[in-house]
Order: sequence, then structure tokens, then C-alpha cells
Amino acid sequence: MKLTRRSKAWLAAGAGLGMLALAGCGPAAAPTSAAPQAAGFPSQWLQYGSNQEHNTVFPGTGAASEVLQGTSWRFREHRGIPLNQPPRDESVLGKGPSGYFHASVKTTQDLGNAVGVTGVGGIIYVGEDRNRVYAINALTGKKLWEGMTINQNMAEPIVAGGLVIVDSGDTGFSYSNVMKFAKHAPIVRGMGFAGVWAFNAQTGKKVWSYDTKGEVMPDGVVLGNAYIFGNGDGHVYALNLKTGKPLWITAVAPGKGGFDSMSSANWWKNPATGQTLVYVGFSDPNFVYALDAATGKVVWKQTVPKVFSTGMGDNSPVVDPTAGIVLDDSVVSFNAANKTLNLDLYAMNAATGQILWQHKLGRGKAILAFKAGLIMVHHGVAYVGDPDNGTLQAYAVKTGAKLWETTLPKSKIAGKMVLTQDRGSPVYYKGVLYEAAGSDVFALNPKTGAVLSSYPVGGRFGMINPVIVGGTMYLANSWGWSLAIPLHDIYPKG
Amino acid sequence: MKLTRRSKAWLAAGAGLGMLALAGCGPAAAPTSAAPQAAGFPSQWLQYGSNQEHNTVFPGTGAASEVLQGTSWRFREHRGIPLNQPPRDESVLGKGPSGYFHASVKTTQDLGNAVGVTGVGGIIYVGEDRNRVYAINALTGKKLWEGMTINQNMAEPIVAGGLVIVDSGDTGFSYSNVMKFAKHAPIVRGMGFAGVWAFNAQTGKKVWSYDTKGEVMPDGVVLGNAYIFGNGDGHVYALNLKTGKPLWITAVAPGKGGFDSMSSANWWKNPATGQTLVYVGFSDPNFVYALDAATGKVVWKQTVPKVFSTGMGDNSPVVDPTAGIVLDDSVVSFNAANKTLNLDLYAMNAATGQILWQHKLGRGKAILAFKAGLIMVHHGVAYVGDPDNGTLQAYAVKTGAKLWETTLPKSKIAGKMVLTQDRGSPVYYKGVLYEAAGSDVFALNPKTGAVLSSYPVGGRFGMINPVIVGGTMYLANSWGWSLAIPLHDIYPKG
Repeated sequence: MKLTRRSKAWLAAGAGLGMLALAGCGPAAAPTSAAPQAAGFPSQWLQYGSNQEHNTVFPGTGAASEVLQGTSWRFREHRGIPLNQPPRDESVLGKGPSGYFHASVKTTQDLGNAVGVTGVGGIIYVGEDRNRVYAINALTGKKLWEGMTINQNMAEPIVAGGLVIVDSGDTGFSYSNVMKFAKHAPIVRGMGFAGVWAFNAQTGKKVWSYDTKGEVMPDGVVLGNAYIFGNGDGHVYALNLKTGKPLWITAVAPGKGGFDSMSSANWWKNPATGQTLVYVGFSDPNFVYALDAATGKVVWKQTVPKVFSTGMGDNSPVVDPTAGIVLDDSVVSFNAANKTLNLDLYAMNAATGQILWQHKLGRGKAILAFKAGLIMVHHGVAYVGDPDNGTLQAYAVKTGAKLWETTLPKSKIAGKMVLTQDRGSPVYYKGVLYEAAGSDVFALNPKTGAVLSSYPVGGRFGMINPVIVGGTMYLANSWGWSLAIPLHDIYPKG
Repeated sequence: MKLTRRSKAWLAAGAGLGMLALAGCGPAAAPTSAAPQAAGFPSQWLQYGSNQEHNTVFPGTGAASEVLQGTSWRFREHRGIPLNQPPRDESVLGKGPSGYFHASVKTTQDLGNAVGVTGVGGIIYVGEDRNRVYAINALTGKKLWEGMTINQNMAEPIVAGGLVIVDSGDTGFSYSNVMKFAKHAPIVRGMGFAGVWAFNAQTGKKVWSYDTKGEVMPDGVVLGNAYIFGNGDGHVYALNLKTGKPLWITAVAPGKGGFDSMSSANWWKNPATGQTLVYVGFSDPNFVYALDAATGKVVWKQTVPKVFSTGMGDNSPVVDPTAGIVLDDSVVSFNAANKTLNLDLYAMNAATGQILWQHKLGRGKAILAFKAGLIMVHHGVAYVGDPDNGTLQAYAVKTGAKLWETTLPKSKIAGKMVLTQDRGSPVYYKGVLYEAAGSDVFALNPKTGAVLSSYPVGGRFGMINPVIVGGTMYLANSWGWSLAIPLHDIYPKG
């Protein structure tokens, strides 16, 4: 553990680490690997981004939050590459129009972390592309246990009922599916074995697994006793959380296929009817679906004109539960001649799927792989990045009114300044917006979009939402690292 | 080590194991893991199938061969599944028209061994799909060391110059390549990181690695100081065996792509010119290429009409060095209406590529994945299986005259009798033909094709050539096992 000036000051003032860590819990004792510091952490993590709004912040309370403000560590995962080095095989794989694309994509999809971490009860959970899942002491950065699934783990681990749920699958297509696609026949995404694995959250012992034909890259959502997710074989599955046995399975587009690449499930309880809906996107054909959480019946589906490629199956709907609105953004209007595209942000009535408003986020050069931005909603404002043009933008959820647009400073990746591809969602914490994109963490004014500070980390961030617990930010990146950074280091005035 | 009746008789007659193992090498000592029994094994393994003819037999000498005749072990690799169980995820992945196809294919390509083993100096080397490579004591079945590459290892380990060369890559295509294929643009095979890895043959320590853009699934050939192989990005590479640095790199179809899936390289030295040629097949476009081994220059290329799908990139040319003939077989005349296809066997002039003769091996129901049969040549006869119709056939190399055709007995896979898909090449040993196909090892009369015996192993065999050393057969299979079976158990009269 590296101590910041602030926590050093606390220690100098006579406050022992052990006392702070276990304040109010009986006799003071230094935290150990077996009993990590839990203060400030949530007790469960039920969906991608931890809640419907994707705002993954946990202020903590009193002394605990101050101790955690001093937490700084870097955990190198299997095959993790140094943060100041280029992506793996850069010279072999070649470069895209904007610099490091090909190698960065492969490094994200085949070596490091596609998304971020989960923090529950003082433990950071993270899955990565080399089939491993880690439980890390949030205070020390020491590994508590390591598990292994059958394929790459591209989702945030879900933590519920004493289990860590890890989704496993890969982005590839078999040659027979390549040929089917050319004939417009339904295809399945995922080359290797795939499925969902459940581990005991404390010991890492495997409890159950459920195998699927297509990849399980996106996150599901825990609703009651069910874990509900879409995947690469055109289905939405609801599994019994305790046993892994299916409660229901729905083919979203019978006879037509469809695949969910990275669209993590979200939910909303309709106050008028009491019905809980699950939202998930699929590609080929492109639709956002709303399913009844209890039965799996499709309640509505929606699409937008000129949606392109893996548009809707790649991105995760966000929900503003108060407004009763679901938001998503997808690639539309791809121009094959000059390789540019537009990202459209659209709002849907959560109960009916009706499009309420739709906005272009601007045209940019088509980047490789995931081309959309994850959305975070806070106090009636939707914050969304556009990785194709390097911007972060803010819109009023109800009206669609544009509040601001900021072009993020360029990122330094392996010594070169490149467009900051902002794929993840920001978080809102104590009046500051934090966003991890490119190789940096940025602090912004949420009212104006003004960049307040930038903190270089190295490597590259994928579709990440930073996790803030009691003054520490927890992250994972494409180079194969899990990280704890004192929030104070990122933005001293925060 | 399990002793057969024959080796027990030897021991009863007073012949100590240690004495036999080190006969003529000084004081007697029992073989240990650190110093495995080397008698009878070759000192290097320079290409797929160990030689141009793919006849992987090593009679051994005197007492050593008798001791090894008693060797029986099963080595379970990472995630290996019990031999009497179905392939992984059978119920999830669904069945093809002939039974176990979908799950068998995925188990072959993502869990177990696509091909067989290599035996050098008393050590069995094997690579598998979970990225691991093992060195196993040939006498005891105990692991000497375990290495790991960056992706699946589908080729036989090559052993030369004190190094074990392991090719690494996977069968998948990225979504961008899926879209390119639909537009008839060049594509690259292989989703994950790929390349060639060299380990110290004794210690397993990594010596060098060389990364490539596309998969390296097939084997290369060692010629002099060069390791020469084709791969998924449309190139043939010659690497310096000692350093892994490229000597030359040839794009076989510039601007058109091409990918080598499982076509392992072969070679022939033209006695008239002294030039050494390397033969390797590519798909999309489909050609067998002959390259000058010293410079990488393409000397000739050849194709056959109506070749289908991954035809030429999947199969490995065999060479009859005396006749100066290269043989290969590829899928032709696919009938999309009834899903049948034909496998054509063809002979080419090794110097010019001219087609000398071409034979249909018969029409059969299209099976999934690898649809051809590897060829073995012995004393002017080519032996080849047709996995689509379950036959093994023999042809005169020079004239193309058909000598016989045998339908192999059905195989019992997980309790059900299914067509025996004969993908691998047989070996000729002391007047008997041995073939591993389906879940069995068969002994046949090489003159008539009559089946003499069948020995059930379980699991499923891929594109395997059994390796026979001094009376023991060494194998690997799709379920993730390396095996030693006394030849006497397979065919007691052999």
C-alpha cells in the first residue's frame, strides 16, 4: 500500500490504520488478506454499472472513506503488459488510421480487460481475457483467490447471494458462420466454449456453471432469484441464481438469429402495472428488446433507421427509473466511401419502447471494434462519450436538450498522442464527473463539461465505468491491470 | 507403467528394466523422469508426420523395443474429459446429421488435441487447445515439464536443435473479416494472438517466440537452419531456427489474401537441379504452392476445378521422394441441395506441379470442420481416408491405380455407433497398417485393406498419425489425452 499525503497526515495525527479500518467493530486489528476492509463498499453488485443509472460511486462513511482515500495499488493479471508499453504485437498487427487500433483491439479482446471491476464487501472482483477471475483485497491489492472459466471473461463480475457470477465467451466466428453470413443466414457469435460460471465469493470455489452455444460476453442482471442475460446465440436466459438451472429461455428473433455482443441487461419496474422489464440489445437483426422478467415474454422491441453492423448488440441500455426512460446509442449512417459514421443517441419510453427523441452525436472516422459510448444518468442528465470523434456530451434525459459537448484531450498511448476513444461511462461523485478513456482518467465539471484535470495511467481503457469507493477509484484496463488510485491524486480539489 | 504379458516374461527371464534401458551405456540404472528411456526414438522431428511420407514408425533395436512394448499410460491434459464421456456441451451445441458432430468439433478445436504427438529421445511432446505444451516421459507417462503459448496449439511439436517448436493460433474470424468475406475481400484467419514459440526441449524454458497476424495452426518444416510454415494471414514464413528471426516472408497471393488453416508444410529436393522445394496449401484462393526453400520465391502453384471451401488450406501435401510426386486431396463438387461432397485425390509432378492423375474418393454427407484425409505413402502406395464416407483407400502413387477401398467399422462414441471419420493418416509397421480414427485404433492388411483388429480407446481421434516406437503406439485425441498403448494390445499378431 502506498500512502498519499493525506493519509500520511492522518497517521501522523495518531490514527492507526487498524483502528480506522475497523472503527466501531471491536478491538483494533490490522486488516489482513482474509478479512479485507469492507467499510463503504456495497454488499452486492447486481448488474453492469452496479445500478440502472451506471453511476458506480459509493461515498463510504467517516474514517473509513479517508483511509481508503490513501489506497494505491496495481495488480498485474496473467500476461498483463507494462502500462507504458505499446499494445501486444503492434508491429505485427499493423495500425489503423488513428494510430494503435488493430493491436489495441486485440489486446483488449484477447489479453486484458474489456470492462472494469466490481467492488463488494472490501473485495475487488475482476475477470479478464485469459480466462481468469480474481478476487483482490481492496485495501492491499493482494490476491485473495483466482478462478478460471472456460473462455474469455469480458463482463464485470456480478456479486449476489454469496456468489460471483462470471460470464465467459469470445468475439470470434467459425468459418461455417462466416459462410452463412455471406448468404444472409442466421449466425452465432463465439468460437470457443461459453457460458456462465458461479464462484463462492469468499473462497473462489466453483459452485455451478451453465453452458451456452454462443458467447456470453455481456453482463446479465440479478432480479430476485434470477440471473438474466442475452448472448451470442440469439437468446435471453434466466438462470436460477442459486443453482444455475434455467427458469426460462427466450429466442428473441426466432428463425432470424441475432447476437448480443456486449449489450448488458438493464431493468425497470413499471409503477403503473408492477411489471418488471428487462432491456437488452441484439444485432443482426438490430433491436433493443424489453422482456417480462418473470416469464421472458418479449413485451416490445425497437430499432432506429440505418443502424449499422453490431450497433444494438454492442451497447448497454441505461435506465432513468424516475423518468421511466431507457436510453441507448448505436452506430447509424455508416459511409463506406470515406469510412465515417455517426453515433445516434435515442430515448425510449420504458413501458412501450416508443422513441421519445433522437440526437446525432457527430460524425467521426470509424474506429475498430466497439464504436459506441456507454451512458450514465445522474439527476436527469445523460452523459455519453462518442469514441469516434473523441467527445463527451451531456443531454437532458426528458427533453433531449443538448447541455454541452467537450472534446477530451488526446491520450498518450505508448509515447504517441492519439484520439481519446471514450467508450465507457463516466461517474458523478461529489459534484465532479470522472471518466476513464484512452490512457487517462479525466475530471470534468458536470455542468459545463470543462476538463478540470487529467491523470495519466498508461495502457488503454475499454468500456469502463470507474468505481469510486470512499475516496479511491478502482479500475481495470486493456493491458491486463486492475488498479486502485486515490481520488485525490486524480483531482486534488475533488 | 503397466506391463504386458510379453514384457513380464522378459522380466521373469532375468532382464532388469534398467539394464535394458541403458544397454551398452555403462552401469545399469533405472530410468528416471530426468533421463527418460531414449532407445528407439528419433533424435529430431522435423515436420508433420516426421518425414515426407508421413510414416511415423521407429522400430527400435533389440531389447529396448521389447521393453517399450510393455508401455501403457494415459496422460490427462488440462481440462481433458473422461474417454467414455460425450464431447463437451453435447446437449448445448446440438447434433449434426451423423450424431456428435457439433460438440465433437468444438471439443477438438477448443479443448483437446487436433493432431497427434511427437516422440524424440524418449520424450513425448504434445500441444493442446488450452494453450499448453507438455513434455512426457515416454516410459512412465509422467510430466517432465509444461509450457504455455499465447493461443491454441493445434500442430505436432517440432523438435530440432534442442528446441521444441510449437505453433499457436485459433480457427476463428473477427466480425470485420466476416463482413469482408461477404464482400469477397481478402480475409485473415485467427481471432486471438498467434505465432510460433520455441522451448528448450529438456527444460521447457521459452527460448524465443515469433508473432504473426493470422493463426499458426499447421506445422512447418525444418530445413537446414530454417523453420518454414504457412499461416492464416496469407504468408509463408522462414524463421531462423535458433533465433526466431525471419529469413524470408512470402505473400502467396498478394492483394488476394489466402489462409492456411491446417496445411502443414512438406518438402522435396529436386535431384536434377539440387533445388529444395517447400509445399503448402492455402484457401480463398485455393492453391497448393511450391516455394524455393532458400529464397521463398513461388516456383509453381496448382489447383483443381470446383474445389470447395477450405479445401486446399486444410490439408497437408505428402511427398513420395523417390517418385518425385506430391499428393494431396481436397473437397470438390459440394452439392448444397443435399449437403454432399466429394473428396478428390490428386498427384502432382513435384518439380512442375503438373497434375498427373486425379481420383474421386466417393461422395458422402458433408461433415463439419476438417473434411479431408491425410495421406501416407509407403513403398509406392498412397493410403488415404475419406472421413465423409468412412472409408480408407489405397492407390498406386505413380499410376493412380486404385488398389482397394475399405469401409471402416463404425465407432462407438459415448455409447453410440457412428460413422468413423477417418481424417488422419495410417502408419505402416512390420507388414501391418495401423489407423486411429473415430474412437478406435484399427489394424489392417495393407495389401487388401481387410480389417484385422480394432482397439477401442474412447474419445475421438482428429487428424492423427499414430506414432510407433519399439512396439508402443503413442497417440493424442480430441478429448484432451495423450496415450501410450502396447502395440501387442492393439493387434496381438502384429
